[in-house]
Amino acid sequence: MKILSLFMALLLLAAAAPSRLSAASAPGGMELERFVLDNGLEVVVAPQRTVPVVTHMLFYRVGGADEEPGQSGIAHFFEHLMFKATSTRESGELAAAVAAVGGNQNAFTTEDFTAYFEQVPSSALGEMMAFEADRMRNLVLDDAVIETERQVVMEERLSRVDNEPSGILGEAVDSTLFQNHPYGRPVIGWMDEIKALTKDQLTAFYNRYYRPNNALLVVAGDVDTATVRRLAEETYGKLERGPDLPPRIRTKEPEPKVERIAVLRDERVSLPSFSRSWFGPATFSADGRDADALLLLSVILGGSERSRLHQELVVKKQIASSAGAGVSTSYRDYSRISVYARPLDPGKLREVVQAVDAEIEKIAREGVSDREVEVTRKVLASGLVLGRESQMDRAMEIGTTLMVGGTVEDVNGILERLDAVTAEDIQQVAQRYLAKSRSVAAYLLPQGAEDPV
Amino acid sequence: MKILSLFMALLLLAAAAPSRLSAASAPGGMELERFVLDNGLEVVVAPQRTVPVVTHMLFYRVGGADEEPGQSGIAHFFEHLMFKATSTRESGELAAAVAAVGGNQNAFTTEDFTAYFEQVPSSALGEMMAFEADRMRNLVLDDAVIETERQVVMEERLSRVDNEPSGILGEAVDSTLFQNHPYGRPVIGWMDEIKALTKDQLTAFYNRYYRPNNALLVVAGDVDTATVRRLAEETYGKLERGPDLPPRIRTKEPEPKVERIAVLRDERVSLPSFSRSWFGPATFSADGRDADALLLLSVILGGSERSRLHQELVVKKQIASSAGAGVSTSYRDYSRISVYARPLDPGKLREVVQAVDAEIEKIAREGVSDREVEVTRKVLASGLVLGRESQMDRAMEIGTTLMVGGTVEDVNGILERLDAVTAEDIQQVAQRYLAKSRSVAAYLLPQGAEDPV
Repeated sequence: MKILSLFMALLLLAAAAPSRLSAASAPGGMELERFVLDNGLEVVVAPQRTVPVVTHMLFYRVGGADEEPGQSGIAHFFEHLMFKATSTRESGELAAAVAAVGGNQNAFTTEDFTAYFEQVPSSALGEMMAFEADRMRNLVLDDAVIETERQVVMEERLSRVDNEPSGILGEAVDSTLFQNHPYGRPVIGWMDEIKALTKDQLTAFYNRYYRPNNALLVVAGDVDTATVRRLAEETYGKLERGPDLPPRIRTKEPEPKVERIAVLRDERVSLPSFSRSWFGPATFSADGRDADALLLLSVILGGSERSRLHQELVVKKQIASSAGAGVSTSYRDYSRISVYARPLDPGKLREVVQAVDAEIEKIAREGVSDREVEVTRKVLASGLVLGRESQMDRAMEIGTTLMVGGTVEDVNGILERLDAVTAEDIQQVAQRYLAKSRSVAAYLLPQGAEDPV
Repeated sequence: MKILSLFMALLLLAAAAPSRLSAASAPGGMELERFVLDNGLEVVVAPQRTVPVVTHMLFYRVGGADEEPGQSGIAHFFEHLMFKATSTRESGELAAAVAAVGGNQNAFTTEDFTAYFEQVPSSALGEMMAFEADRMRNLVLDDAVIETERQVVMEERLSRVDNEPSGILGEAVDSTLFQNHPYGRPVIGWMDEIKALTKDQLTAFYNRYYRPNNALLVVAGDVDTATVRRLAEETYGKLERGPDLPPRIRTKEPEPKVERIAVLRDERVSLPSFSRSWFGPATFSADGRDADALLLLSVILGGSERSRLHQELVVKKQIASSAGAGVSTSYRDYSRISVYARPLDPGKLREVVQAVDAEIEKIAREGVSDREVEVTRKVLASGLVLGRESQMDRAMEIGTTLMVGGTVEDVNGILERLDAVTAEDIQQVAQRYLAKSRSVAAYLLPQGAEDPV
C-alpha cells in the first residue's frame, strides 16, 4: 500500500522522466469501451490480448483533498481497512486468493482518488469482481480493526515522513506551496488527526464514498467488453446506488506573490540538496494548454541527461552531481513543477542554486528552440507508446485521466495535445509560472550547515 | 471597520507594547457582574462611574477561523453588511443616531469573534440595544446590498493587503506559520473567495451565528446591572433563541520541524526589514502558563527601549534603527510571538539577523535574571492598571477574554498569573518554542536586493 503524494509522485517522475510520464498521461490509439451500470458504476474496458492476464482496477472518486478539515488521512486509512474482514469474508481472503493464482494486488491513495487493483489470470476476473464488490459495501468497521490499523498507519507515517529528513521537508514544501487548497495537506494525514479519527467518522466516510455511483472500474488486458459487462452485472450490479454526491469543488489557491524557502538541517544529511517548486494549472482545466507546455518545458529543462540543467550544471560547469526537473500533471486542480540540484562541493551550494535559477530565467528571456521542442515531443511520445505495452500502466492511465477531470476521449488525445505545443508557448509558461517570487525553495542541509542562500 | 488580524494585532502590540498589552489581557480588580437572558444572550456589566458615558459592545462567537473552507472573509463581510438596512430601519440610521448624541461606533473582526460597539451618553444605552437587537435578526440581505458591499470589501483588501508590501508579506507569513489551523487564512478573506460568496452562503451564516445564544453583551461605564438587565430584557430579550451550535473545534497545527523563510522584494521598499515568528500555546489552554511566560519573555526581549534587543542592536552595536518583539495572546487556539529588526545600513541585514537570533539563543542558554522578571512584571501590571481607566479598553478586555476561552474570573486573574511566572519558566519557553527550526522568517527587501540570508 503506498501513497502517491505530490512530492513522492514528483520524485518518481524525476527519477525516470520519459517512461514515467506515460503513466501520468495516456498513450494514443488505445481501444476503449465505456458503459455505466444501472447503479451508477462507470466501467472502461481496454482489451489487449498479448498475455492471458487481466488487470482489474477499481477507482473511488475520493482522495486526500476531499477530506473534511481535521480528518486528514481518512481516505488513506481506508486503503488499509479495505483489506480487513467483511461481513462475508475473513481478513486476508483476497490476498490468499490472488496469491493462489500467482497474481498480485495492492492499493494506493492520491490527493484525488483511491484505487484498488488485482492483476490475475483472465479466468479469475469474476472472482476479483466478487471480492471488490463485497468490500465496497460489507466492510466490518469495528473498534479492534480500527485501532490495529491506526497503529499501522501511524507507523507508516513515522517511517515515511517523520523519521525521514526528505519526508519532513517534502511535507513542509507541500503545505507551504498550497496554503489554501487541500493539496497542502499530506495524504497520509497529520499525526494528530490520524490519532483522532473516530469510528463514526470512518463509518460516515465509507457510507458516503464507497458506493458504485462513486466508483470507476477499469479492466485492461485479455478480456472482451461483453465478458466484463456480464461479470460486472453479476457482482457489482447487485449493489445499491448510494446517495448522489455534490460536485467536488475545492478551495482555490491564491496567486502567490512571495518567495518562500524551507530549510531543514538534519544530522542524517551528509550532502546538501536544493529544490524549487511551483504550482501550475491542471491538465483538464481551462488553462490545460499551459499544463502541456509546462510538461515539455520540464523535460527540456531537466527531464534527462540531454536536458539543459544536466548539461549545464553536471557536464559543462561540473558543479553539480545531479540536476533536473519534473512535473506532475496527474492532479485534478493543479499541476506541480519542480527543479532540483545537488552540488558536488557542499561549499558551492549557492553557486548551484544561482545556476539553476539562471537556466530558468534564460528560457523565460530567450525561449527554447524548435529543435528542442521537436526532440522532446518525440521522447515523450515514445515513452507513451512504450507505456502501452503494460496493461497495468494502461489501466492506471485510463483511471487517472478519468479521476482528474478527463474523459475517455482525453485518454487518446494526449499525443495531439503535445503536438500543439509550440516553442512560444513554452517561453510564455516559463514567464507566467516559473518566477522565483511565486516559488517555494527547499534546502536539505547537514546539521550545522550555514544559511543556504 | 477594521480587521485585527494576527499580523496587524502584532504590529499594534509592537508599536506600543506596555499599554497595548493591557487590552490583550485584563486589569485586576474590576467589578464584574454576569447574567444570561432566557434566550441565551450572555451579559457582563462593568460599572465605572467616572464620566456619564457608557460603552455598549456586542460580541459574536464567530470569526475568520470559524469559516467553512472556500468561504474565507464571510465573517468580516458581515462587519460591513450589518451597517445596512434592516426590515425596520434604513441604512445609516444607527450611525446618525450615535452622531446625534456625540458618540462613536464601529466594528471589528478577528480570527475568533466579531464585535460591534457604540460609546454614547448613558441615557442612550437603551436606544443602542434596540439598534443592535434589531440588526441581529432583521438584516435585509438582498443582491444589491451584497454586491455594493462586496466592492467595498474588495477595495479594502486591495488597499490593505494587495497594494501594501507589508500586507502581502504579512499574509504570506500567516499562511506559512499556520498550515493546517485556520489562523493561516486572512480574516479579510482570499480575493477569489470574497468574489465567490453567495447570497445563500451569507444568509445561512447570518441565520446560524447572529443569534442571542451565540452573542455576548458587555456594557462598561456609567450604568448599574439592574438597568442593563431591564434594558436588555426589553430589547434583546424579545429575540428568539437560535439552534444550538456545535463546539468550536478547529484543526490543530502540527509541530513544525522546518524553518521557513518568506522573501518579498518590492520597488516601494527602500530599507530592508526582518521578522521571525513562532506560534505558541493559547492563554486559556492546558499550556496557558507557557503563554504567560512567553508574554514576559517577549517584553524582556523586545517590548521597550529597555529591552535586550533594543539595547544590544540599537544602542550598543548601533547596527539597527529599530529592533523589538511582540506577542499576541488574545486568540483562542494559539498565541503568536515575533521579533523584528531593521538595519541601519542595508548591507548589514545579515549581521542584524544574526544578532537578533543570538539574543534569543542567549536566553535559551543562560536564562534571564530575577531582576528582569520583576521589572517586567511591574511594567505589565502598570499597563494593565492604566488600561482600567478606559471603559472602551475594559469592555474590549472582558469581551476578548470570554471570546478566546476565558471566564469572568479569568478577567481579574491575569495579575496573579503574571506573578506566578519565574525566570526558569521564561528560559524553558525560550527553549521549547523559539527554535529557529520552528520559525517563519520574513524579509521585506528593496527591488533587486540580494538574497537575504
